[in-house]
Amino acid sequence: MSRTKLLFTPGPLTTSETVKKSMLRDVGSRDREFLGEVSAIRRSLLALGNADDSYTAVLMQGSGTFAVESVLSTIIPRNGKLLVAINGAYGRRMAGIATVLGIPCEGIIFDEATPVSTERVAAALAEDAAITHLATVHCETSTGILNPVAELGRAASRLGRIFIVDAMSSFGGIPIDVVSDHIDFLISSANKCIQGVPGFGFVLARLHLLEKAEGCARSVSLDLRAQWQGLEADGQFRFTPPTHALLAFAQALRELREEGGVESRAARYAANHQALMHGMGALGFETYLAPHHQSHIITSFRYPLHPRFDFPEFYGRLSELGFVIYPGKVSHADCFRIGTIGHLFPHDMEALVGAIRQVLAGMQIDSARASLPVGRTEAYE
Amino acid sequence: MSRTKLLFTPGPLTTSETVKKSMLRDVGSRDREFLGEVSAIRRSLLALGNADDSYTAVLMQGSGTFAVESVLSTIIPRNGKLLVAINGAYGRRMAGIATVLGIPCEGIIFDEATPVSTERVAAALAEDAAITHLATVHCETSTGILNPVAELGRAASRLGRIFIVDAMSSFGGIPIDVVSDHIDFLISSANKCIQGVPGFGFVLARLHLLEKAEGCARSVSLDLRAQWQGLEADGQFRFTPPTHALLAFAQALRELREEGGVESRAARYAANHQALMHGMGALGFETYLAPHHQSHIITSFRYPLHPRFDFPEFYGRLSELGFVIYPGKVSHADCFRIGTIGHLFPHDMEALVGAIRQVLAGMQIDSARASLPVGRTEAYE
Repeated sequence: MSRTKLLFTPGPLTTSETVKKSMLRDVGSRDREFLGEVSAIRRSLLALGNADDSYTAVLMQGSGTFAVESVLSTIIPRNGKLLVAINGAYGRRMAGIATVLGIPCEGIIFDEATPVSTERVAAALAEDAAITHLATVHCETSTGILNPVAELGRAASRLGRIFIVDAMSSFGGIPIDVVSDHIDFLISSANKCIQGVPGFGFVLARLHLLEKAEGCARSVSLDLRAQWQGLEADGQFRFTPPTHALLAFAQALRELREEGGVESRAARYAANHQALMHGMGALGFETYLAPHHQSHIITSFRYPLHPRFDFPEFYGRLSELGFVIYPGKVSHADCFRIGTIGHLFPHDMEALVGAIRQVLAGMQIDSARASLPVGRTEAYE
Repeated sequence: MSRTKLLFTPGPLTTSETVKKSMLRDVGSRDREFLGEVSAIRRSLLALGNADDSYTAVLMQGSGTFAVESVLSTIIPRNGKLLVAINGAYGRRMAGIATVLGIPCEGIIFDEATPVSTERVAAALAEDAAITHLATVHCETSTGILNPVAELGRAASRLGRIFIVDAMSSFGGIPIDVVSDHIDFLISSANKCIQGVPGFGFVLARLHLLEKAEGCARSVSLDLRAQWQGLEADGQFRFTPPTHALLAFAQALRELREEGGVESRAARYAANHQALMHGMGALGFETYLAPHHQSHIITSFRYPLHPRFDFPEFYGRLSELGFVIYPGKVSHADCFRIGTIGHLFPHDMEALVGAIRQVLAGMQIDSARASLPVGRTEAYE
C-alpha cells in the first residue's frame, strides 16, 4: 500500500509512531507482564473517568458498538425497559440494538441539530414507571453535537434510573466525571481520544450493578459480567484478546499522561478545532451545527451549493493529497465530517485546509457557501 | 516490557517480523486501498478453503468465539435445533452459546481422548428429525485431537442437515475442502495457522443459507448476515474494523502463499511436531492422546508424576528463558499444551526442548514420566 495519510476521522484515527511501534511484539495472552499491562490499563481508565471504588473497568473485544451491545445485553434485566434519548445515528443504533435483543425500549427523538433536552427526558422518565434505564450519547459523532450528560445524569439519579452513556468519541478528549455526573455505565473504545488502534472497547461500570446482573446477558461473547469476572479472577480475558492493540493502548495511555492528561488533550483538540473553523470559514464553508452546540471532536460541514461540488470527487482528491476526511451522517442534510482528534496538531489542520483550497480550485469551485446570501434566497430551491 | 518470547501456544502466536511491521500505519476504514485489501483477504480465504462460487467469506471483529457465536446466532432459525458433537472444551462452548441464545440444542458427548464418532452422530441425526444443524470442532484445541469432518460432512449432507465446523486452530495448517467435505459454515480466526495477529475471526459461509437467514440474528454486532451485506454493499465493515490487524493479515496471507500454501505450511508444522515429539519423548514426557489421534497443531502432555513437578513453576521458569507454553484444558487429566503452529521452525522446537531439559534439571526432576513402569503401578495412587 502507498504512503501514510493523515486521518481526520472519528477513528480509526492517526496514532503516534510510538503507539504503533509497541505492536512490534507478540505476547502470550496469559503472560504475566501482559496481564500486568491489562490491569494497569483498567486502572488508568478508571482514573481518566474520575471513577471511585464503586466502579470497575471492563475491556471488550470488537468495535465500540460491541461494547455498547455488551452493556445493554448484560445489565438490563428481563423486566427492564430502556429509554434512549436520541439526536443522531448512534442514539438510534442503541435503540436498534435493544430492539434486536428483545429489550422493551422507547426512543425520545430530538432534532439532530439540537442537544437532548433534559427537561423532556425527565418528563418521559417521570411519566413511565416501567423505564429502568436511560441511555444517551455524549458526543453524537454523526454531527459532533455534545449532549448534557451531567444534567441528564442528575435527572436519572433523582428519578432512580440507571444511566448509560455512549462516550465513544469523547472519552479522553473531553473531561468527564462519572461519579458527579451519575453515569452508571460509560462506554468508549480504544481508537478514539485515547489514540490507540482499533480492536476493543471498554466500559466503566458501577460495580454493584454489574454484580447484580448475573444470568442476564443475551450472549456469551458479549457478556460484560462474565468478562469482568474473568478479568478479576486471573487477570485474563475469557477469549483471545487483541494483544497487539492492547500493547498499543498501554502506550497510548502513557502518552496521554505525558501530554498532561485529559485537560491538556482537550486543549489541543480545541486548538485543532479552532484552526479548522478559522480555515474552513475563510473558504466559505458552513457548519451544520450552531457554534455553541459544536464539540471540538468532529465537525459536520454542509456541502457547498456550487453545482460542480461532488463529494466522492472531493474526498478522492483530498485522499490523493494524503488527507482522509469522513462522509456525513446527518439524516436530512448533505454534509461531510472532519475529525479533530488523534495524533494531529493545529498545523495539520492548516495543511488540511490548504489541501481543501487546492482541491476546490482544481474542481473550479470558487465558493464553498452552502446557503445563498440574503436577497438571492429565491434561488435556494 | 521485556524481550520477545517465542509462543508455543494456539494463538495469539509468534508471527513474522514482516507481519507485525505491516501494522506500522494508520489507514482509514473507508480508504479505497484498505477496502481493496479487505476484498483480497476475503477472496484468499475462499481459495484456502477450496470454496467455489456457492460460498462467501465474512470477517467478524472480536476473537474466534465471537465468530462462532455470530454463526450460531445468525443462521439457526427460531424453529431450528442444533446438535453439537463434543469431545472437548470448544465443542462444549458451542453448546453453551446455543443455550444462552435460546437455541434448542443437544450435545452428543465423546471421550476427550477419542475422535467424534460419525456413526453415532449419524444415528443421533436420524433419530431426531427436529435437528436442523450439526456442529463440531475440527481440531479440538483443548487436546489437539482431530475430528473426522469429511465423514461427518458426508453424513450431515446425506441426512439433509446443515454442517458447521469450528476450524479455529486448523484452518490454514491442515488442508480442508469445504465443498467436498460438505461444510456449510467454517469458522476460524486471524491469529491461528494463517499467522496473523488477533482482532477478528472469519467465516466461510454457504451463500444461499446466509441469504436465507434474514431477520434471524439475536444480536446486532454479531449479525453475520448484516456483516456480509455491508461488506458486499460497499466493501466496508458495518462497525469499525481492526484496521491494523487486517493489514497484518493481508501480509500473513502473502507469506502463506510464498511458503507454498497450506500443504507446505502443514508440512512445516508436521516437522515441528515431529521435532517436539522426538525431544519430549527423550525426556520421558507422555502425551495425552494416542499418536494416531494427534494433530500437528497442538499437543497435550501429561504432567510428570514426579513429586517436585509444579506446573506454575515449570511454566514460569520456561517463560523466564523466553519460551511460552500453554496450560492444559483436559477435563480429567493434568496436562499442559505445546503448540507447534505460528512462525516457528523445527530448530525452535529443539530450543524449547533444550529449555525444558534445563528447567527440569533446575527443578531437580530426573524423570518426566507420567505413569510408572509395569511392576510399580501399585504406587500410582
